[in-house]
Amino acid sequence: MTRGLLLVVSGPSGVGKGTLCRALRKRFPNLHLSVSATTRPPRPGEKHGVDYYFLSEEEFKARVENNGFLEWARVYNNYYGTPWGPVRETLQRGEDIILEIDMQGAEQVKRRYPEGVFIFLLPPSIEEQKRRILKRGTEDAESLAKRLGAVGEELKYLPRYDYVIVNDSIAASVDKLAAIIIAEKCRVKRNQEWLAKFIGKDGEGQE
Amino acid sequence: MTRGLLLVVSGPSGVGKGTLCRALRKRFPNLHLSVSATTRPPRPGEKHGVDYYFLSEEEFKARVENNGFLEWARVYNNYYGTPWGPVRETLQRGEDIILEIDMQGAEQVKRRYPEGVFIFLLPPSIEEQKRRILKRGTEDAESLAKRLGAVGEELKYLPRYDYVIVNDSIAASVDKLAAIIIAEKCRVKRNQEWLAKFIGKDGEGQE
Repeated sequence: MTRGLLLVVSGPSGVGKGTLCRALRKRFPNLHLSVSATTRPPRPGEKHGVDYYFLSEEEFKARVENNGFLEWARVYNNYYGTPWGPVRETLQRGEDIILEIDMQGAEQVKRRYPEGVFIFLLPPSIEEQKRRILKRGTEDAESLAKRLGAVGEELKYLPRYDYVIVNDSIAASVDKLAAIIIAEKCRVKRNQEWLAKFIGKDGEGQE
Repeated sequence: MTRGLLLVVSGPSGVGKGTLCRALRKRFPNLHLSVSATTRPPRPGEKHGVDYYFLSEEEFKARVENNGFLEWARVYNNYYGTPWGPVRETLQRGEDIILEIDMQGAEQVKRRYPEGVFIFLLPPSIEEQKRRILKRGTEDAESLAKRLGAVGEELKYLPRYDYVIVNDSIAASVDKLAAIIIAEKCRVKRNQEWLAKFIGKDGEGQE
């Protein structure tokens, strides 16, 4: 069976990763959304096991020791990580899963799972991105200042990604992500297994 | 300006390249279809400059000498080639062009223009493909025998392509080709020029 796609959607804070991934999932109901683990406190309305697995620092570190994360990072005094088990099982079943993670996390995923599809979301402009971060209003002053300061700096990761989408409209970005999924499934390198059988089987008849 | 895409659609005789490319063009009216040159005689209904440029062997060889072809090949006692000039001009205008060519031609295009998007069309099965070749009924006995014999052999080119599409339905294949076009336009490597400006320009504000 052809393995599922691991889609990594990343980009600067406030670019709209979460909104886009949820919109994409409406179009592809069979697409899995990876649920991250974190030690940061829940924001109002966030549910354990749905938005995040909310772990204590001790629990988190124990999982790190056991290689339980596909990627993890400390960001602004909190830990974030992607549990590896559920991702691996989804891919092995031939189903696709999307990871909405920051750029430090994406770097680690690329090292551990280079077959992933790495998509960088760009804001229409840096100014627009700062407006979005300010509008969200969920940050304290210190992390807000850090996020705003990191905005230009974070673009240095971009050249190592496969795809870039300028997120100026959710509908257009969903169309592009959907096209990327369909196209990636047609890649020769992702179909080696059955292609070898097809060529082998049909080649025999020609001898 | 971002350069246009050079799409190369190839695959064994009788797989349905022509039908697919014409259907794709209905969906993307701005997509250009490259017109090949050939020394083979026109089939009933074929028009010079529309289906092919029908050239004498002397004319063809003169153009080969002048590097006038992106690719050319001798197949079954006839010459086929893709005039390079119109392709280059289309790409430079930022417009996309599709080449429907055989696998020998595609190999040459890959060497001369590796930035092309190489798509291999597969028949649902070898048996189905032989049926399609026989059904077309435009071949004399000798070239028919050659074409049927080459069917399995031709698959050896497949691993060097970017994408593979099993052409079991025109509608589904057009959807996949359309997705490939949209996805390829999002590739980071195809957007280097404006990305460098975006990063540079917005990076300045952060210093």
